Amino acid sequence: MSDNNLQGLLGLPDEAFVQRRPGSNTMTKREVRAITLAHLALHEHTILWDIGSGTGAVAIEAARLAHQGQVYAIEDDAGALAAIEANCRHFNATNVTVVADRAPHALQDLPDPDAIFIGGSGGLLNVILEVAMARLRPHGSLVVNLASFEHLAEAVHHLRQADWTVECTLVNIARTQNILDVTRFAALNPVFVLTSHGPEKQAEGSPTDV
Amino acid sequence: MSDNNLQGLLGLPDEAFVQRRPGSNTMTKREVRAITLAHLALHEHTILWDIGSGTGAVAIEAARLAHQGQVYAIEDDAGALAAIEANCRHFNATNVTVVADRAPHALQDLPDPDAIFIGGSGGLLNVILEVAMARLRPHGSLVVNLASFEHLAEAVHHLRQADWTVECTLVNIARTQNILDVTRFAALNPVFVLTSHGPEKQAEGSPTDV
Amino acid sequence: MSDNNLQGLLGLPDEAFVQRRPGSNTMTKREVRAITLAHLALHEHTILWDIGSGTGAVAIEAARLAHQGQVYAIEDDAGALAAIEANCRHFNATNVTVVADRAPHALQDLPDPDAIFIGGSGGLLNVILEVAMARLRPHGSLVVNLASFEHLAEAVHHLRQADWTVECTLVNIARTQNILDVTRFAALNPVFVLTSHGPEKQAEGSPTDV
Amino acid sequence: MSDNNLQGLLGLPDEAFVQRRPGSNTMTKREVRAITLAHLALHEHTILWDIGSGTGAVAIEAARLAHQGQVYAIEDDAGALAAIEANCRHFNATNVTVVADRAPHALQDLPDPDAIFIGGSGGLLNVILEVAMARLRPHGSLVVNLASFEHLAEAVHHLRQADWTVECTLVNIARTQNILDVTRFAALNPVFVLTSHGPEKQAEGSPTDV
Repeated sequence: MSDNNLQGLLGLPDEAFVQRRPGSNTMTKREVRAITLAHLALHEHTILWDIGSGTGAVAIEAARLAHQGQVYAIEDDAGALAAIEANCRHFNATNVTVVADRAPHALQDLPDPDAIFIGGSGGLLNVILEVAMARLRPHGSLVVNLASFEHLAEAVHHLRQADWTVECTLVNIARTQNILDVTRFAALNPVFVLTSHGPEKQAEGSPTDV
Repeated sequence: MSDNNLQGLLGLPDEAFVQRRPGSNTMTKREVRAITLAHLALHEHTILWDIGSGTGAVAIEAARLAHQGQVYAIEDDAGALAAIEANCRHFNATNVTVVADRAPHALQDLPDPDAIFIGGSGGLLNVILEVAMARLRPHGSLVVNLASFEHLAEAVHHLRQADWTVECTLVNIARTQNILDVTRFAALNPVFVLTSHGPEKQAEGSPTDV
Repeated sequence: MSDNNLQGLLGLPDEAFVQRRPGSNTMTKREVRAITLAHLALHEHTILWDIGSGTGAVAIEAARLAHQGQVYAIEDDAGALAAIEANCRHFNATNVTVVADRAPHALQDLPDPDAIFIGGSGGLLNVILEVAMARLRPHGSLVVNLASFEHLAEAVHHLRQADWTVECTLVNIARTQNILDVTRFAALNPVFVLTSHGPEKQAEGSPTDV
Repeated sequence: MSDNNLQGLLGLPDEAFVQRRPGSNTMTKREVRAITLAHLALHEHTILWDIGSGTGAVAIEAARLAHQGQVYAIEDDAGALAAIEANCRHFNATNVTVVADRAPHALQDLPDPDAIFIGGSGGLLNVILEVAMARLRPHGSLVVNLASFEHLAEAVHHLRQADWTVECTLVNIARTQNILDVTRFAALNPVFVLTSHGPEKQAEGSPTDV
């Protein structure tokens, strides 16, 4: 049984990924990836755009879930691209297509997606949101992770103007570090996970209480 | 396309589940479920014990991920059992087996699992942990969600005594509520997600930086 | 020894305050009050404006710290005004002046303050910030508590435009509730505590390491 | 006006304190200090024991509040003692007495306190708690800050055995860091603030709603 088979469909350990540079620590962390993937509402056949793919960790876990779908990892930083390639090989992620270009330009020739994740926008968030709203297929989920409340407020304003729904989750995670015999928590920085659906998204059936 | 196909492999909305009683709100919430599932390291073929299954939300999402595996939802509360049955029907979760009995007794005749989740222990946490450590298959993940730090400390002590690893994540989530035109966060209560592996678990291969 | 002497200069229990209506729970909570008071940098002689005073809890604790100063509690809601009056009597807060009017109009005839706290702005945040920046005395601290990231982003933008500093603290608090023999945490909703100083504020002396 | 007069009774900036070693960052942070001081319920005349005083930040802020009282800063680490002395000079904290010894031995000859803070216990928490419970004056507050849930559970168990009350606050703080034009939050590690009162502490008067 090979290494990557020991590991699950999601929840790959952060340290199993090559970073974009030695010592860099900007990847979307395991717990935040799990919440992000949950909000993306992935299916086996999902076509996902992963915009600002970084180390490719979200792309690779998404590709394991959407194993009959296709993940487009859009990234233009050379170090990040090398990391994504190495990580795709390591995890045998054959359904990740690396797009070595910058959004929104990179998105032009891609097929319309069922889900879009924006992990980085290189200062072009509003323009990318425009393309995302135009191209996301009906009932698709758009998820944006943000560290800055200014960008969050800007994205929310932009989406609401277009009558898209807005749901935001503030994620504060701390993980144990073993120090001698006791256990202390080391905090990850807070992340805002913003999820949005287009005006056509129907209310989902909720059963009545038994 | 039916309702449940509109929804993803994970990230089902909390309000899509029947609760154990009207107004009850003790289910493992969507974000916490995602982190829990990530730590369980589920595969397509995973056999999972979900001990103290409650509304069955973790069991059902796990069953969608481990679609060729089997999930045993162990629960003895009558209201919860009715909710699990209703939720399994609603989400067409054919690979969830409901075990209407109390752990650890309920575990006796079940096949050895690849993963174990303990969401509730009815005051028998240590006894259940004993059985879990004895029965979990090699390389399997044991995950326990706890609201109480006393129980957390007790479980950690118990696992360490047996040379099992201990990793704990403190999860603080807040979600937006729309109030007029502005967005406020409503906090979920903090949860400790405890993950443990047996002494035989090998170090996972981590690639060197590129 | 009277009741209020049993209690400290700060850290008065939340349940010791009359609420603006029975069951209402919108007051600034004890832990958030402590952080807010810390950022206000109060002195014995501080003149404080407490804008949107609510139940008066911040005003009363500030008045205990600035016992030779003066606190102006500005509020126009009738229920809140009754609560402030009752709470001032209960805690014998003789240096709180209740101003039954709405900001910014209410601020016109008040003396220039050494510190300003904005706990509520009735939709007039930007106008109130204008007056606050114009009237706050040199080296004074302006603190704004916000539940909404849109308002936060707006306030930050407004302050930066005027070359005021911006420092924001995200406060996530959970408190134990005893349930039978174990202890669970109940979360308070997250609050953004925004602190700002005018362009004239000098860098504070920081000693060199020993 | 001197430097330390520019600063408030509480809320002194962390960077204004000399650290126990260059680059060390173990001090109780400003926001956590404010919550800790609130739970200590300090008066003007309070006698406080600050056990494991570290850089002396809690001792110094407590001494500013209890300006007619006395704070005993108990510490035995040489680097910490040098920092406390430097910080007391810098902030002109004349009512802080540095006790260069280890608790519980150091406590023997001190006057009975109105409030006790334990920020560090050097592995002797239970013994120190015994002395604290024996010596704390009626109606006094005992506050313990802990990073480890094992120590927390142990302290809670110990206090409850002796019929002391237990109240615990989980504090998750993040602060903005300015990165270019946007604002990100950097998280502080979570801290448990445990507050306890002896069996004789009377229920505090809570007024009825108006």
